[in-house]
Amino acid sequence: MTLQPLPNLRDVFKAQKHVYRYLKPTPLYHYAGLSRLVGAEVWVKHENHQPAGAFKIRGGVNLAATLSDEQQKAGLLTASTGNHGQSIAYAGQLKGVPVTIAMPEGANPGKVAAIRSFGAEVVFAGQDFDEAREWAAERARQTGALFVGPADFPLIAGVATYALEILQDLPDVDTIIVPVGGGSGASGVCTVAKTINPAIEVIAAQSAQAPAAQLSWKAGVPVEAKMRTFAEGVATRVPFELPQRILRQHLDDFALVDDEDIKAAIVLHLEHTRNLVEGAGAVSLAAALQLKGQLAGKKVALVVSGGNLALEKLKLLL
Amino acid sequence: MTLQPLPNLRDVFKAQKHVYRYLKPTPLYHYAGLSRLVGAEVWVKHENHQPAGAFKIRGGVNLAATLSDEQQKAGLLTASTGNHGQSIAYAGQLKGVPVTIAMPEGANPGKVAAIRSFGAEVVFAGQDFDEAREWAAERARQTGALFVGPADFPLIAGVATYALEILQDLPDVDTIIVPVGGGSGASGVCTVAKTINPAIEVIAAQSAQAPAAQLSWKAGVPVEAKMRTFAEGVATRVPFELPQRILRQHLDDFALVDDEDIKAAIVLHLEHTRNLVEGAGAVSLAAALQLKGQLAGKKVALVVSGGNLALEKLKLLL
Repeated sequence: MTLQPLPNLRDVFKAQKHVYRYLKPTPLYHYAGLSRLVGAEVWVKHENHQPAGAFKIRGGVNLAATLSDEQQKAGLLTASTGNHGQSIAYAGQLKGVPVTIAMPEGANPGKVAAIRSFGAEVVFAGQDFDEAREWAAERARQTGALFVGPADFPLIAGVATYALEILQDLPDVDTIIVPVGGGSGASGVCTVAKTINPAIEVIAAQSAQAPAAQLSWKAGVPVEAKMRTFAEGVATRVPFELPQRILRQHLDDFALVDDEDIKAAIVLHLEHTRNLVEGAGAVSLAAALQLKGQLAGKKVALVVSGGNLALEKLKLLL
Repeated sequence: MTLQPLPNLRDVFKAQKHVYRYLKPTPLYHYAGLSRLVGAEVWVKHENHQPAGAFKIRGGVNLAATLSDEQQKAGLLTASTGNHGQSIAYAGQLKGVPVTIAMPEGANPGKVAAIRSFGAEVVFAGQDFDEAREWAAERARQTGALFVGPADFPLIAGVATYALEILQDLPDVDTIIVPVGGGSGASGVCTVAKTINPAIEVIAAQSAQAPAAQLSWKAGVPVEAKMRTFAEGVATRVPFELPQRILRQHLDDFALVDDEDIKAAIVLHLEHTRNLVEGAGAVSLAAALQLKGQLAGKKVALVVSGGNLALEKLKLLL
């Protein structure tokens, strides 16, 4: 298997042309309440404001723009707990490309409905994301459809456009904290921030109940780990090769935060930003509160990766 | 008392220069789920994505930019149930102008906290918005501070910038539905839409439990009415002169929607747009569902005026 190349800043500039044909920059807002809680100057990058409610859409749009005619005809096949699937479904709809998304049983019903509303077929396959992914990869081999890995090159280059927006809006940002599921977001932030200013600290964060990406990053080799987080946006059991290579090269730190702290951070977001944030999206705030000591007085950007919290989960939290 | 002049499109263009120094355009997104429910092509103007969570901030920024040195020194005084107060407090902080906001007892605690976080003084005065407003007007006479009415000329010109964004993003919009509390938003939409294309239908909507603005518009003279809505953003008991004059000239229709339907629309927004929307913000969707028949097949823009729903209310709704 040949390794995918690493995306660089030029690839991100190319992606911008595609992304901004369909999407607008999301805001980066300062919140006094969160700043007091963290003891730092806290800014929030609102990827939850995207049309499908999550940052992934940038990657899907970039991917769709770079498909060959044959790939468009053959269609796209991928697996997702929701946001990545929405992104690929949205992108497929833009280009009239047939899309099939494999999802784990019991997936967030709002995300399932959203994927279908973008005209994609949903197939439930397996108990978790990684089982669905294996099914999708096998099915792609059988049908000739293009299997899209959730952290492939065009997706990373696409989502990295939000990192550029952070640096344009807050050029003297000290620290960016970004949630990790597959790692495309964190890879995009590393690619952009470390090229423009290597002094910017990039901290990844994941649920302690789904630590595969963190353990792999620490070990320097792929490590599988138990996955039992409620936050489906960071619910990976197996690490991905391309983002892991990027994170190994660039990432400064990788925090694990407990699911209970993620839930508390969802409520803090409601209180202080009045934004509905999903579990994965709240991971960055949970990590900032955990790392308070080392963030004191800094300009910190928290990436809120998505806002697609299931109504039932919201009820339980409140 | 001399009447304020009516703002026109030139005033809105002037306001844009001030507004875009501090704020970005908000997105207008299409939602397939809402479109199915309403039986129309439904777009949502996301003023809930503003930094203080509501459209009012545009007016505050425009007002602040046009204050004289003397007015800046004397400070600003106004009354608010929350969003208008946040807007003026935010604007005061931008310019270093002292701000006092009179709020009714029992005001939304999140909005009170937000106003204080912008450095303004909060005084609780009276049982509802209009009592707080009377207190603030009297206090301004005593202190020489500038009393800002919640639908004054610079505020209407400022908030009208979102209407321009709607027309730029969706030039062939058929109908715009906009919530009314004081009426600055609806006035801004009328000013812009009817100047650019008089065929655009502008429909205002308010809670049936706070119908003063609607009754005044229908009667052609100011009418007070009982106010017992839960949606503080549209909770006015007394109509305002300037917006009423604009609405009388331009508005096509003015719907009243029951509080129970507004509450249902908040939950529909959570389900279909994954946005936390406050009562006032959900009024436009509630009205669209009520007016389904006449909207069939049209391109409809629903203004979501704000997202500052108190956590306690959200709990009750779910």
